[in-house]
Amino acid sequence: LLVFFLQMGWGDLGAFGEPSKETPNLDQMAAEGMLFLDFYTASPLCSPSRAALLTGRLPVRNGFYTTNEHARNAYTPQDIVGGIPDSELLLPELLKKAGYVNKIIGKWHLGHRPQFHPLKHGFDEWFGSPNCHFGPYNNRERPNIPVYRDWEMVGRYYEDFKIDLKTGEANLTQLYLQEALDFISKQQAGQQPFFLYWAIDATHAPVYASKPFLGTSQRGLYGDAVREIDDSIGKIRNHLQQLGISENTFVFFTSDNGAALISAPKQGGSNGPFLCGKQTTFEGGMREPAIAWWPGHIPAGGVSHQLGNVMDLFTTSLSLAGLQPPSDRQIDGIDLLPVILQGKLIDRPIFYYRGNELMAVRVGLYKAHYWTWSNSWEEHSKGIDFCPGQSVSGVTTHTQEEHTYLPLLFHLGRDPGEKYPLSFASEEYQQAVERISGLVKQHKATLVPGQPQLNVCDQAVMNWSPPGCEKLGKCLKAPESDPKKCSWPH
Amino acid sequence: LLVFFLQMGWGDLGAFGEPSKETPNLDQMAAEGMLFLDFYTASPLCSPSRAALLTGRLPVRNGFYTTNEHARNAYTPQDIVGGIPDSELLLPELLKKAGYVNKIIGKWHLGHRPQFHPLKHGFDEWFGSPNCHFGPYNNRERPNIPVYRDWEMVGRYYEDFKIDLKTGEANLTQLYLQEALDFISKQQAGQQPFFLYWAIDATHAPVYASKPFLGTSQRGLYGDAVREIDDSIGKIRNHLQQLGISENTFVFFTSDNGAALISAPKQGGSNGPFLCGKQTTFEGGMREPAIAWWPGHIPAGGVSHQLGNVMDLFTTSLSLAGLQPPSDRQIDGIDLLPVILQGKLIDRPIFYYRGNELMAVRVGLYKAHYWTWSNSWEEHSKGIDFCPGQSVSGVTTHTQEEHTYLPLLFHLGRDPGEKYPLSFASEEYQQAVERISGLVKQHKATLVPGQPQLNVCDQAVMNWSPPGCEKLGKCLKAPESDPKKCSWPH
Repeated sequence: LLVFFLQMGWGDLGAFGEPSKETPNLDQMAAEGMLFLDFYTASPLCSPSRAALLTGRLPVRNGFYTTNEHARNAYTPQDIVGGIPDSELLLPELLKKAGYVNKIIGKWHLGHRPQFHPLKHGFDEWFGSPNCHFGPYNNRERPNIPVYRDWEMVGRYYEDFKIDLKTGEANLTQLYLQEALDFISKQQAGQQPFFLYWAIDATHAPVYASKPFLGTSQRGLYGDAVREIDDSIGKIRNHLQQLGISENTFVFFTSDNGAALISAPKQGGSNGPFLCGKQTTFEGGMREPAIAWWPGHIPAGGVSHQLGNVMDLFTTSLSLAGLQPPSDRQIDGIDLLPVILQGKLIDRPIFYYRGNELMAVRVGLYKAHYWTWSNSWEEHSKGIDFCPGQSVSGVTTHTQEEHTYLPLLFHLGRDPGEKYPLSFASEEYQQAVERISGLVKQHKATLVPGQPQLNVCDQAVMNWSPPGCEKLGKCLKAPESDPKKCSWPH
Repeated sequence: LLVFFLQMGWGDLGAFGEPSKETPNLDQMAAEGMLFLDFYTASPLCSPSRAALLTGRLPVRNGFYTTNEHARNAYTPQDIVGGIPDSELLLPELLKKAGYVNKIIGKWHLGHRPQFHPLKHGFDEWFGSPNCHFGPYNNRERPNIPVYRDWEMVGRYYEDFKIDLKTGEANLTQLYLQEALDFISKQQAGQQPFFLYWAIDATHAPVYASKPFLGTSQRGLYGDAVREIDDSIGKIRNHLQQLGISENTFVFFTSDNGAALISAPKQGGSNGPFLCGKQTTFEGGMREPAIAWWPGHIPAGGVSHQLGNVMDLFTTSLSLAGLQPPSDRQIDGIDLLPVILQGKLIDRPIFYYRGNELMAVRVGLYKAHYWTWSNSWEEHSKGIDFCPGQSVSGVTTHTQEEHTYLPLLFHLGRDPGEKYPLSFASEEYQQAVERISGLVKQHKATLVPGQPQLNVCDQAVMNWSPPGCEKLGKCLKAPESDPKKCSWPH
């Protein structure tokens, strides 16, 4: 089992219409496997989506949200106090019961304090970082992010793991690639079933690529990073084939949120024909490229319109391992194997949450917005724009607009770009909204929100002295504890 | 030689990232042939593009433009007095010299008066109409558009060739398909080299599809029309294969202008990630899907970033027939065979004209706008919007903005959506603009504009009494001649 989980937009792959067409390996995987065109993440932001992938549950259930303010995306920065609760059952914990060895390579992002360490939550190995690799980067205001090997840190970004912010050069993707190849070789040699979660972040600002890829893309530095990732995925695929285990390895590629248009054009990708990007519950924020690859099992050239999401990978992975999902809690993922192997279509809704608020719901080709918001006028006036060059009156609003009594309805087949709300008076509107609102009522009636993990921030909890820092002489002195409510602008 | 020339946007094909992925036949042709990702039409409007395709020359040279107003797209409606001048040499005229039989199926659109008849300009056969199939449709204000077989009309749209404006049902695409299959069979039987120009218009508003396709697309009626066209193209391809002539037949698919977003979502397509649509010189108006297919000659799975345009099909087709382009006039097309067969890249600019004005030029990945305009505030306030949901400050302007001294410059690799003009002060800007402006100077210095054909309109010249109308009892009385300057709002 191999899951590639990256930050890329729907429109970043050649197979999804990126006009430079610079992802030959992913395109080939799509041609040899199954392309999911209607696949979603669980949140328009990275860490809640990662929590959802590994728990099979919406962030509002597993705690990766905030109640400090309404409809706020909540980050998992260094001063976050919370993280993944022990009460959550993570995919690797469950796979262990079936004898799997589990490794995470790259960004964990489910909390960086000791109790949240990935090896306490089912992973056997880790090479990567607990948080994003952005700064500030001076070890004073906040420490540089540590890079861990298993239980202990082995260095910090910008110190031992260089990222040149001027040229964009870093060899991190190569390190993460080598880790993947070595892990796979070892498991194959031991005939050991494995789960590899390859969660690298070269396409997250500040984007980076190694020297051989710098300057090679039509798309600039962001494209260089994409090309290196595509090349790495090709090498991992070839490695599976050379080891003769490609027919025993289920591979899934997808992304944690839409392209960060706010970082475009230099550091952000493309959401193709969709509206807005990361941070929003428009299609550009949550619809993701997705490819399933499993030679000998998935027929080549498949295309699915199944409404899927990252939580399905939890349930599907368990199914592949012959396991049942936990029955003592609500699981939001469904088993996609009947879709992938038998071409079935399962009728199910997609919920678009932003923090504590259900912003929109998709059922079939209809999407109803119960709330609309891009960001505030105040943020927008600072140049922070989640929808650059796009503006749909009454839709990409800069105040939080409530539509719960009369949702905005779009038909995503005729109008994938969410530009033409259906007339409230039409029969089509009334029938679709009636159906969707029934599902919403049911969803809300049974929803038990988790304890919000992203409410409290404290500078004392940052990565000042991670385990292993002593050996390296890299322990830093933490400031005094000063817990307070985290404040999120979006 | 087979050219499919339709109205579709860059983003309308699955292979180009349309999210419903409903064009399996075109996608397969792309997979078996060569995909052109940087291919352009010659004008953001249909008839000038068609004139350019068949003459190998920019509309400003072959006369398909107007000087009545600045930077106006000019239509070829029923009251147009002009058409393709006798002095122009059309592709079928030239191919005749190499023994080709030439047929046009569908919309001619190079003038409907007797002297402009396609059989007077090199075609041997015609089944289709001289103008678009839109209305009014009452034979009073203007006559319904005739459908010709060769020299004579055989009926009129909405009378003998039904289009149900309420349901969108029409079996025209099936008629045009059958014509193509029959023509190909006949030429194969006679071992006759042929040029088939399949220029059907089901995706032009009012869009239509035949009953078996109605309601089958996720995309609504527009998608139904696309699906029927895709299905027809698949049948034509299969026919070539069954007759054993696919390896002797060069096939090219492309479009005459970007998707008409003004007709979206019901009657308009998609330009994918590009800015605006038909009528504009932004990428959405002129960048087109393009596929070359020639089994046994073009390697499967090819992708080209060659800057190409529809005028290249003129020169390339002559080259395939062993002919040279005329040497007594400026030809704007280049021979793409070295690109298609040997993977070469030829450095050449793309000129974006709107009527009499050179609005923009692309060289490499840089595009410089010398003028920007979407449409006037007056038209925009009537709801006529060529960029729905899109707005880029200073770029999608509603007054004609001149930038000839300091062009707006975009890098289409990093910024395919034309949202982020480069800084005028940057070295990159200065180097790129210097190069482009040199080419513009050279282009303008040698340009000899043709006599504008789209300046004069007269209600008397409409299709009141086309040849053959007597036999059918379908002659209508023309009003008195009242020639005047045509006026074009865009």
